[in-house]
Amino acid sequence: MTAHAVQARAPAAEALIEELRGLLGDRLSTSAAVREHHGKDESYHPVVPPDAVAFVQSTEEVAAVVAACARHDTPVIPFGTGTSLEGGVAALHGGVCIDLSGMNAVLRVSPEDLDVTVQAGVTRKQLNEHLRDTGLFFPIDPGADASLGGMASTRASGTNAVRYGTMRENVLGLTVVMADGRIVKTGGRARKSAAGYDLTRLFVGAEGTLGVITEVTLRLYGIPEAISAAVCPFPTIKDAVDTVITTIQSGIPVARIELLDEVQMRAVVAHSKLDYAVAPTLFFEFHGTEAGVTEQAEMVSAIAAEFGGTDFQWAAKAEDRSRLWQARHEAYYAALALRPGSKGWATDVCVPISRLAECIVETKADIAASSLTAPLVGHVGDGNFHLVYLVDPANPAELEEAAELNERMVMRALAMGGTCTGEHGVGYGKMHFLPAEHGEAVSVMRMVKQALDPKNIMNPGKVIRV
Amino acid sequence: MTAHAVQARAPAAEALIEELRGLLGDRLSTSAAVREHHGKDESYHPVVPPDAVAFVQSTEEVAAVVAACARHDTPVIPFGTGTSLEGGVAALHGGVCIDLSGMNAVLRVSPEDLDVTVQAGVTRKQLNEHLRDTGLFFPIDPGADASLGGMASTRASGTNAVRYGTMRENVLGLTVVMADGRIVKTGGRARKSAAGYDLTRLFVGAEGTLGVITEVTLRLYGIPEAISAAVCPFPTIKDAVDTVITTIQSGIPVARIELLDEVQMRAVVAHSKLDYAVAPTLFFEFHGTEAGVTEQAEMVSAIAAEFGGTDFQWAAKAEDRSRLWQARHEAYYAALALRPGSKGWATDVCVPISRLAECIVETKADIAASSLTAPLVGHVGDGNFHLVYLVDPANPAELEEAAELNERMVMRALAMGGTCTGEHGVGYGKMHFLPAEHGEAVSVMRMVKQALDPKNIMNPGKVIRV
Repeated sequence: MTAHAVQARAPAAEALIEELRGLLGDRLSTSAAVREHHGKDESYHPVVPPDAVAFVQSTEEVAAVVAACARHDTPVIPFGTGTSLEGGVAALHGGVCIDLSGMNAVLRVSPEDLDVTVQAGVTRKQLNEHLRDTGLFFPIDPGADASLGGMASTRASGTNAVRYGTMRENVLGLTVVMADGRIVKTGGRARKSAAGYDLTRLFVGAEGTLGVITEVTLRLYGIPEAISAAVCPFPTIKDAVDTVITTIQSGIPVARIELLDEVQMRAVVAHSKLDYAVAPTLFFEFHGTEAGVTEQAEMVSAIAAEFGGTDFQWAAKAEDRSRLWQARHEAYYAALALRPGSKGWATDVCVPISRLAECIVETKADIAASSLTAPLVGHVGDGNFHLVYLVDPANPAELEEAAELNERMVMRALAMGGTCTGEHGVGYGKMHFLPAEHGEAVSVMRMVKQALDPKNIMNPGKVIRV
Repeated sequence: MTAHAVQARAPAAEALIEELRGLLGDRLSTSAAVREHHGKDESYHPVVPPDAVAFVQSTEEVAAVVAACARHDTPVIPFGTGTSLEGGVAALHGGVCIDLSGMNAVLRVSPEDLDVTVQAGVTRKQLNEHLRDTGLFFPIDPGADASLGGMASTRASGTNAVRYGTMRENVLGLTVVMADGRIVKTGGRARKSAAGYDLTRLFVGAEGTLGVITEVTLRLYGIPEAISAAVCPFPTIKDAVDTVITTIQSGIPVARIELLDEVQMRAVVAHSKLDYAVAPTLFFEFHGTEAGVTEQAEMVSAIAAEFGGTDFQWAAKAEDRSRLWQARHEAYYAALALRPGSKGWATDVCVPISRLAECIVETKADIAASSLTAPLVGHVGDGNFHLVYLVDPANPAELEEAAELNERMVMRALAMGGTCTGEHGVGYGKMHFLPAEHGEAVSVMRMVKQALDPKNIMNPGKVIRV
């Protein structure tokens, strides 16, 4: 059942479609609406539908679909929830979309080892719902209720990463279908291992270009004994960012430390009917023991006060925290509502923390001098922030202006030792930045890609140009 | 200067030696004593000297040496401090050893970003000495004063990993010389990135088989406001391990939690003239604020008491902590002293924490039924423990018995979801376990190896059979 065994090549896709239909029955769809839905993500990138969508139910089915596609030299595009932001699901060269949302079983929970194995289509909210009675949770929260396979593929992170790390740190092992249909298991359940190449982290962040992730083993964490959250406005964005920098440099283990600029705060206040000041604002969350949370909160309050942040609103009860975080969680949709009908072009640079204030201030000056509205939110504890350019995708001049602003910001971040994407991934929207960021290392990535996917059928046209 | 450009092959090494001598002058050595020293690690594996040793001083020199070796199809073996335990530096197919110990400059410290870039030959103690006035430290402590390039190559960890992670989590970026002499830089200084394949973690743990690491960018941490350490004996080894399991499952952020069994305690008490009970013993260290350390210590004391561990000796002052940890740090040499003239065969399995007590108890029963003495130490917070079989390397029957015991233990650990090596690496001593641990994934590792090192000159005969 591998590509090695069968060298015949079918020029047309019809034979492949028939073969897949034989395999999946009515779980293979070629309807326009289904294909359209699967060629679309949450970004400004245009819809590029696949030729067919395979609704798979097992790793073995994925292997059979990939092996068939390999025999027909046909691209394979994995699909979880379609929440990518850089065109990751666009079928740029046609091909078969593998929709993994039906693979949504939690296969094993081991509370005593603080780990879990899930099928790739399980979403993070589904997992946390499943874990509700165990006292455990999975902390990575990219905002969208993405699938865990998709989050692994994108090396996602989000608001809790400053404390708990990203998918890079939290994936213990994977089941992956390779480009020839072979099934491999990477990593394992030991907390550490020096046994061979770290294939787990090679597939994490590969965005489906090296294989299709079908199962994910993840670290879990005990729900903290105490959680406390707070929101605090600052006189200027620099004051807010300097508060973050000092907090991180002091080693205070904040669980979340999020920045919304005054443009974004105006959006969320209007959209979510919230009673916050329209000013650069930090959202904090502290996890720990009762005493530990109190101590962290006191230390951060003292730092914030040095930078003019004194108007803390605290929330310790779960429902109050939810209300507090609502503003942050609805930021993207609130931003879009600033300009009805617009699409969001979300940027994603990440810089060393010492350069964060400088990077944000210079970037906001660029925006102010432009014609665009672009609210700013940031996982600032990691040095990561997002602008959302509110664009009319039908207006080439606007897209051009956004592209130029983005390029200036990315080059600024790279010059500061940063990265063009902290967590959204490369897709095809950021491929042209990789040489500037990684130089000759891109050619090593290409060698890996060509070795593991010699026919270039795995999500082709993304991440690495071959 | 790449292998691509020159296809000529010299059958003999003499031309290569001359070329390298032209490059390095008297920093190229072929003396028997130097070669002998570089073919030897700290383990029971026999000495296998290289043909020559190149004492390099820069990444560019490494690139020139590798390119020359590539042209002559000659193996390259990187060497840091020679403290590997699985034969990593043995020149199994001859070739040129690249000694990086002269590349010992700390290139950049950024206290405000909590990161540092060092040449690969800098040792962990040298780095921490260098950092002394910054209030920062690098926590990974594998025991030996290894080079940071070697630690990255081996994916090393040690006593602090339960809190701070391993080299996997703490390397932000690398400079690597590829098999054709190209120099690439991987990763970066941003705390997270989703920009392309994670080459950093591909080279971390590759043991020099994919390239030679010449520079390492590392995370640093603030020296904790408060540190407290304690030692406590337990009635049985199961009691000690159950204390560890409960501590980890409770999410208490211990910085170190180390187990020494009664055999190892007898050794250290004798060797280091210490006044400890000869019983299974846990060594703890807590890092945090004054209040946090107190709280952690109280929680762990309460857990230990449930398992009969009540005789805590505490050390808060730095010199008392040093004395306390002396027993742990001298464990290996104390073990060897139990049988003068013996060599240590250090095992290294790591299992999910819920299986740790079972794995240790069964393994110790095997030892008891054998003819060997084998003290046990463990980084038990990670589920990782080591036996040191005290063997006479000239006695094949003993080596055979040790190999059989090791195999039984590895297979036991694998059956429990564990790994054959938590931190020592594969070298050539554990290559035969990789298929049992990783199955088909080994063939993917091999595809990566063949893609990046098509001539198989990078530390050949280690990690992956080609």
